[in-house]
Amino acid sequence: MIKIAIDAMGGDFGPEPIIEGVIQALKEKKFIPILVGDKFAILSFLPQHYHDKVEIVHSSDVISMSDSSTDVLKRKESSIYKAVELVREKEAQAVVSAGHSGATMTAATLRIGRLPHISKPALATLMPSLGKNKTLVLDVGAVVECKPQNLYEFAIMGEAYAKSAMGVKNPRVGLLANGEEDSKGNDLTKETFVMLKKFDWFIGNVEGRDIFNGHVDVVVCDGFTGNILLKTSEGVASTIFAFMKKYIKTSLPATLGAMLMKRRVFTNLKKQIDYAEYGGAPLLGVDGCAIIGHGSSNAKAIKNAIFQAINYCDSNVNSAIESLLTNSDK
Amino acid sequence: MIKIAIDAMGGDFGPEPIIEGVIQALKEKKFIPILVGDKFAILSFLPQHYHDKVEIVHSSDVISMSDSSTDVLKRKESSIYKAVELVREKEAQAVVSAGHSGATMTAATLRIGRLPHISKPALATLMPSLGKNKTLVLDVGAVVECKPQNLYEFAIMGEAYAKSAMGVKNPRVGLLANGEEDSKGNDLTKETFVMLKKFDWFIGNVEGRDIFNGHVDVVVCDGFTGNILLKTSEGVASTIFAFMKKYIKTSLPATLGAMLMKRRVFTNLKKQIDYAEYGGAPLLGVDGCAIIGHGSSNAKAIKNAIFQAINYCDSNVNSAIESLLTNSDK
Repeated sequence: MIKIAIDAMGGDFGPEPIIEGVIQALKEKKFIPILVGDKFAILSFLPQHYHDKVEIVHSSDVISMSDSSTDVLKRKESSIYKAVELVREKEAQAVVSAGHSGATMTAATLRIGRLPHISKPALATLMPSLGKNKTLVLDVGAVVECKPQNLYEFAIMGEAYAKSAMGVKNPRVGLLANGEEDSKGNDLTKETFVMLKKFDWFIGNVEGRDIFNGHVDVVVCDGFTGNILLKTSEGVASTIFAFMKKYIKTSLPATLGAMLMKRRVFTNLKKQIDYAEYGGAPLLGVDGCAIIGHGSSNAKAIKNAIFQAINYCDSNVNSAIESLLTNSDK
Repeated sequence: MIKIAIDAMGGDFGPEPIIEGVIQALKEKKFIPILVGDKFAILSFLPQHYHDKVEIVHSSDVISMSDSSTDVLKRKESSIYKAVELVREKEAQAVVSAGHSGATMTAATLRIGRLPHISKPALATLMPSLGKNKTLVLDVGAVVECKPQNLYEFAIMGEAYAKSAMGVKNPRVGLLANGEEDSKGNDLTKETFVMLKKFDWFIGNVEGRDIFNGHVDVVVCDGFTGNILLKTSEGVASTIFAFMKKYIKTSLPATLGAMLMKRRVFTNLKKQIDYAEYGGAPLLGVDGCAIIGHGSSNAKAIKNAIFQAINYCDSNVNSAIESLLTNSDK
């Protein structure tokens, strides 16, 4: 059975929502969680009848949000380090952490190692789309300063992930730019464009709005742009809801209207844009599976991150990436 | 009285909404519009009693969206070229165009010229915010490949515009990055950060979500990132509305609820995010005033772009920029 190492201490709310997420996941799927963290804390949140359904690896240190990403390499007693190490040692097939994302990426990249031919791993996230499936955007923060070769590899990894893990038959991969025309882009994307032209799955430049309108399945960008894009999207969505709340409060008919819309409209809409529904972001390009959760993950987000890890391993994403890279006449 | 050159042919819908916008503006403010375009077309849309309230400069050519930005420099009979030329010749104080934005920026930069000490002008746009005033974001597309000196000048121009044209007493200027910490950013923003540190109005790095939450008044970024940010924001907003419409249609109570919410909530919300309410984007750094309108501007958008031009000239933005640059120990 698949074993998943889970950083039980990471995340803004401590072990409680993480353990709760693991329990929810165990109710729906078969896997063995290896909970890494303070043994006493873990056991205090874990009901008695789950004690034989999990493994626990004790760790005495936690990387906090204020620590630097590279600290993790020296702090070998930290839960992130130990959880990643389990994948390195092949004790687990995947690691899930909602802790310090920079530290998790650093540990996963350097301790698990990269796939052959991959210069740098990329963080990939799903975004809402009016199309048939969600849109995969990468990189959203792993590689802030990119070279064309990085974006080239991101595109290949994105195509492989969309096909194997998301089940998109013929993924359309686009390069994020300031306009759809071939002539648009900055120096980085223009060079990448030339490298990607040979692939039939490459549809050229796409714009910010294309992420959501169903025109593309995979959007490739550098980690600086991707991170800004992600946080801008969250900002727009929460601002729209804040404005709506403000206006609803000013009138009784509007308040009544909002109540009528709640179940069918707002609940469904929230589902579309709630990151907890998406689970976490896979770090593509490591020689294993690492799923990075949102710092403020609740139990549902942890459950879905675990499901993402199971799906990642089951669908052989890494072999798909390797075979695409080997066949791309590098 | 202030004279404003208006490209009557630019925009996706031809002269009609532009002339209508000019008429609406004339009803509210005193200025002399110089309409540049096909004289016959302009007169056909202009009611008889407005004939003595406008000046008309005939032009026989129009730059279309498929033309390249630099074409405008050779096509001296085009409405954009002629409208810009009126500012160069001091026949008008400002130019407003909803036509080919690249062509307008090229013509304005090269024919009107830049302010002293400005390497490259920047396109600045207003975005919705939960704070007291809207947030000014620049550059959103004029300079795709930026150097630290460009961003440094954008910050100064943004501060000056927020203070003089927007009436923000002590504008807070932030540098868009992939995290708030001083250590975050790419090579470009890290170098810019060091240059801006000396200003007391510089609040450091800001994230995508800060554009909307009222934490900052002016957000500085390169034109590639700014353009993506702008189109991503439009994409998120229209996707949320598309999802809502879809869900509303599935249930009668929700449909009723939406009707009750329409006047107080949706109408106000639309106002917040409707670019027509904002008018257009000033091209900061040219030695005059150029307002770039959205290609699909309606009459209201044109009216507001004209008001923006009047406000720009009245508030002496350019002197404010010059004095800030001169006093910043370059």
